[in-house]
Amino acid sequence: MASLKIPAQVPSPSDDSEQLRKAFQGWGTNEGLIISILAHRNAAQRKLIRETYAQTHGEDLLKDLDKELSSDFEKVVLLWTLDPAERDAFLANQATRTSGNLIIAEIASTRSSLDLLKAKQAYHARFKKSLEEDVAQHTSGDIRRLLVPLVGILRYEGDEVNMTLGKSEAKVLHEKIAEKAYNDEDLIRIVTTRSKAQLNATLNHYNNDFGNDIDKDLETGSDDQYLKILRAAIKGLTYPEKYFEELLRLALNKMGTDENALTRVVTTRAEVDLQRIAEEYQKRNSVPLDRAIDNDTSGDYQKILVALLGRDE
Amino acid sequence: MASLKIPAQVPSPSDDSEQLRKAFQGWGTNEGLIISILAHRNAAQRKLIRETYAQTHGEDLLKDLDKELSSDFEKVVLLWTLDPAERDAFLANQATRTSGNLIIAEIASTRSSLDLLKAKQAYHARFKKSLEEDVAQHTSGDIRRLLVPLVGILRYEGDEVNMTLGKSEAKVLHEKIAEKAYNDEDLIRIVTTRSKAQLNATLNHYNNDFGNDIDKDLETGSDDQYLKILRAAIKGLTYPEKYFEELLRLALNKMGTDENALTRVVTTRAEVDLQRIAEEYQKRNSVPLDRAIDNDTSGDYQKILVALLGRDE
Repeated sequence: MASLKIPAQVPSPSDDSEQLRKAFQGWGTNEGLIISILAHRNAAQRKLIRETYAQTHGEDLLKDLDKELSSDFEKVVLLWTLDPAERDAFLANQATRTSGNLIIAEIASTRSSLDLLKAKQAYHARFKKSLEEDVAQHTSGDIRRLLVPLVGILRYEGDEVNMTLGKSEAKVLHEKIAEKAYNDEDLIRIVTTRSKAQLNATLNHYNNDFGNDIDKDLETGSDDQYLKILRAAIKGLTYPEKYFEELLRLALNKMGTDENALTRVVTTRAEVDLQRIAEEYQKRNSVPLDRAIDNDTSGDYQKILVALLGRDE
Repeated sequence: MASLKIPAQVPSPSDDSEQLRKAFQGWGTNEGLIISILAHRNAAQRKLIRETYAQTHGEDLLKDLDKELSSDFEKVVLLWTLDPAERDAFLANQATRTSGNLIIAEIASTRSSLDLLKAKQAYHARFKKSLEEDVAQHTSGDIRRLLVPLVGILRYEGDEVNMTLGKSEAKVLHEKIAEKAYNDEDLIRIVTTRSKAQLNATLNHYNNDFGNDIDKDLETGSDDQYLKILRAAIKGLTYPEKYFEELLRLALNKMGTDENALTRVVTTRAEVDLQRIAEEYQKRNSVPLDRAIDNDTSGDYQKILVALLGRDE
């Protein structure tokens, strides 16, 4: 469930656009006003505000936000204001240029087929090339063999499950993992091509027939990046809330918060499942997610994060 | 250019639907009437006829055609009547079940990104799984490594070309081919991920800098299936008319015509570029394509093929 809260009476896009313009004027910027508007509008509403703003003022709202804001607060406002497909395209492109392979795996595994497709189309439109060619160009070896199909393939999204196939492919996965053949091509094929429902059935068979969760069997303690990506992909495909809970836990537990991860999870999930992720977080950490964020962040950055989490101030 | 000819005055879908119903009634089937209607309607018009037929008679036109017709004529009518995306999904599925890897490569390389995407979505709808998972499951080794990204990746379709990249990737391709490393992962990456415009620029550099067409350098005389698929993909991506010309040449030159290939090329290209393919054919074989088809086929099968080629009888 989404965490985003939208008021019962939403002002018109031109009212919102004028208020934002006002927030930029005079000495200093009115960050509170920006949060009170943008952090309470859904993607369709934000899009209309951007369009109205561009028509009225002949300027891109994102460019003006970029000029007015700074540091972590700027990053979260810009990411949030983007359309989800444009945002994913932007994050993925940044990741290809900074070896952010785990972020590529996250986007590819936790989005629906349609959302991933839209992100790839937004990537074409913005970068004049495909996400796949950039991922393939900036990776090699096993990581490329895993990541390119993970990003490329249009997974079937129906609920139909073939239990016989699930049982036989669970056996394949178990054999390969027992042999430490983590880069086996059938293992990669199963993870990258099967529907989420089918993969889930397979991993249930794995658990039932071999006594361990696959994630546990892949936990080798090694720092191998390929294995990290493989685990992230499997978790993202089958238990996205747990995947994001873990990401937040690590981002907030660190000496020095990982603001990039925190910003990314909150902006990309607030309209999707951030409420569920917050429930998982509280269950696993015995502290509510918004309180953990309060402890680790401050100022306008903190305010917009908890607003996107749906907390009323 | 498409070869399909549509009359200036197209009857209404309900008139067409009634005429088809009449063609099925009484003793024997009126094949000529079926050809005169279906072989002169585009995909949107055929779709409306199918819908009207189903509404009026409570039956699927395709099922009735299946009951009334037989052998090669039946196959061509059914394939042609299908919506292009459904037809590609059907052909691709058949190919996965019959090791038709060259047909998979043909569909993946000669369709536009959008048409390939629609075919994959039609595949989901009809077969309740993805084309990619079927291709991956039914292949292995080098063929899988080439075919899965070839099918999976949503290529960028713009005209933008990076000439520096083209030059450097041409060098990579030439080195790998000189070493006979045809399964090299960078070679596969370049062929499967780059836009058609970019790949074309790269292959022009290849030709200019190393003196040979890449297709020539890949012509090893060996019967290796991987190499055949690689050559088909490269040709299909960069010179689809030449790819289809060659396919028709081989289909018609054989002792015993290859009706499957002939039917596939005519039905899948009649609304796309069959006129250009026919020009290539005549240039290369010094005989018009329709005359070559006349020589090798007969009866209603011949009649519908030349009708789809746009020849007036």
